[in-house]
Amino acid sequence: MRLLLTGSAGFIGSHLAAHFLDAGHDVIGVDNYLSGQPAHTERLLARPGFSFVQADVSLGLPDVTGPLDWVLHFASPASPPHYQQFPVETLMVGAQGTQHALNLAERTGARFMLASTSEVYGDPLVHPQPETYWGHANPNGLRSCYDEAKRYAEAITMAYHRARDLDTRIIRIFNTYGPHMRADDGRVVTNFINQALAGEALTVQGDGQQTRSFQYVSDLIRGITRLMDVTYHEPVNLGGTEAITMQRFAEVVRQLVNPAVPIRFVPLAADDPRQRQPDITVARTLLDWTPEVSLDDGLRRTVAYFRQLHVQGGPPPSLSPLVHQATD
Amino acid sequence: MRLLLTGSAGFIGSHLAAHFLDAGHDVIGVDNYLSGQPAHTERLLARPGFSFVQADVSLGLPDVTGPLDWVLHFASPASPPHYQQFPVETLMVGAQGTQHALNLAERTGARFMLASTSEVYGDPLVHPQPETYWGHANPNGLRSCYDEAKRYAEAITMAYHRARDLDTRIIRIFNTYGPHMRADDGRVVTNFINQALAGEALTVQGDGQQTRSFQYVSDLIRGITRLMDVTYHEPVNLGGTEAITMQRFAEVVRQLVNPAVPIRFVPLAADDPRQRQPDITVARTLLDWTPEVSLDDGLRRTVAYFRQLHVQGGPPPSLSPLVHQATD
Repeated sequence: MRLLLTGSAGFIGSHLAAHFLDAGHDVIGVDNYLSGQPAHTERLLARPGFSFVQADVSLGLPDVTGPLDWVLHFASPASPPHYQQFPVETLMVGAQGTQHALNLAERTGARFMLASTSEVYGDPLVHPQPETYWGHANPNGLRSCYDEAKRYAEAITMAYHRARDLDTRIIRIFNTYGPHMRADDGRVVTNFINQALAGEALTVQGDGQQTRSFQYVSDLIRGITRLMDVTYHEPVNLGGTEAITMQRFAEVVRQLVNPAVPIRFVPLAADDPRQRQPDITVARTLLDWTPEVSLDDGLRRTVAYFRQLHVQGGPPPSLSPLVHQATD
Repeated sequence: MRLLLTGSAGFIGSHLAAHFLDAGHDVIGVDNYLSGQPAHTERLLARPGFSFVQADVSLGLPDVTGPLDWVLHFASPASPPHYQQFPVETLMVGAQGTQHALNLAERTGARFMLASTSEVYGDPLVHPQPETYWGHANPNGLRSCYDEAKRYAEAITMAYHRARDLDTRIIRIFNTYGPHMRADDGRVVTNFINQALAGEALTVQGDGQQTRSFQYVSDLIRGITRLMDVTYHEPVNLGGTEAITMQRFAEVVRQLVNPAVPIRFVPLAADDPRQRQPDITVARTLLDWTPEVSLDDGLRRTVAYFRQLHVQGGPPPSLSPLVHQATD
């Protein structure tokens, strides 16, 4: 197969690209490095079958010649500090970016997959969340640049499917972790691991009783590839099902990395969901998929990756400079 | 003042343009006639102070020379049969269209107003709906091309306000009626009036117990102009507060137009909200605004307008031909 993948220099995108190369496919990666990392592209370019175009999918996609089997739209800032630093760019990659990717799929006769997110459920009032739950998201709060961009991306994907007969897939990705995350992505897994590695206090937001359900990245990749093998156009949740409180999670990371560091409580971020956990009945029945990697195993591999980064060279890389200011 | 108004050939846009001309202002109208009506432009062009550009705001806005005080973004298909006929165009005018209008305001130093909608509340679970209610909308259902486009439009408006310091306003327009509605807009007011005028049965959806709260268009216009005079960036509901069941509303229209026609029950449209009614506390306290025109008065004026259309020339005008196919 020949696939075009936006966001190929991102955490999930780079794992997905590597998976397709492993399977003998050709991958055209696209990224503008707003939140993606050039190091991932360098590693992928060393392998046969991978080519790369540095481009902002919100402004357009390269003209692909030759057949294309899939367009996979994974480009977007995804962590709250990143998307809140770039709210307009985040909105654009959800709207114009998704549409450019849809149009490329339509033009080339490729199938299309949208990487959506559990954030479409906002701060959910139903637990766990089935795909049929419409969510509880603030349409204009500080997180809306991401939540509404993804809800819009789902709406336009379904519009292309319904009105223009495009063969589409939508996955809703829940909290995912693993090697190749950005150390500075500001999310709890990398925060805790890097705090512990640096010998600093682990900062738990609020009272620490809010829960998250984590999935290891290889489970997500397996779910994605299984969905590509079936014909199903409605959204599919992919995520871990074992809820853990943030206080308990801090304890786990501390035990694993450095039992000497303390835990410190800090204020809760605005609009932060109390709880989020997927109902994976659809993935289980449609794809025969369940998460397989335990939190303990996944964390050990992730900690090993970050420990190596720390050994190699001090502080984690900071955010890329702004490469695209949204203009008319 | 000098104002640019997108959607100037629409129902609300044409009333708003006329209001500003009455007040001695200059208005640049923009419309692509996807759902707007050329007759409204012709009437407005007969008046001093009005100029018009036929353009699709999703693709860009005319380069305005000279100062501009306001950009008012009112362009969008707004009735379910219209936006479901043009789902991609509806999504685009919410995303690219809103952004082009925001960019024009930023470039010219104008203030910006977004016409949002009660549809951001979806099928609400809270009654009446205050602006702080996050809504209950299906992110990828048949109505999502409109609901999510408007939620996205709010999100990007607030992003421009927060990140780029644009002076913005957001109104959420609830069910509005009056002269100059499209006879074929497919909504209940025009459906009932035109069915009664044609001597046909009034078609009530579902069991007719779902409610709506209507406002007459002159009340809406008064609310809009008051919001332009204050500095307030959060959304403001503008709508009627007296709920009426659709069965009762059919009775009122029948009595007013033609007591001889029967009422017929038909299936409920997909995702149709059971109930929707604004909490107007913000408009009341901030703008000293409440609706003033009674349903009876407003309906009389609206029926008079449609009766004249029926006398003048038979069937109502059908939908404009598709003037813009969304492309890359």
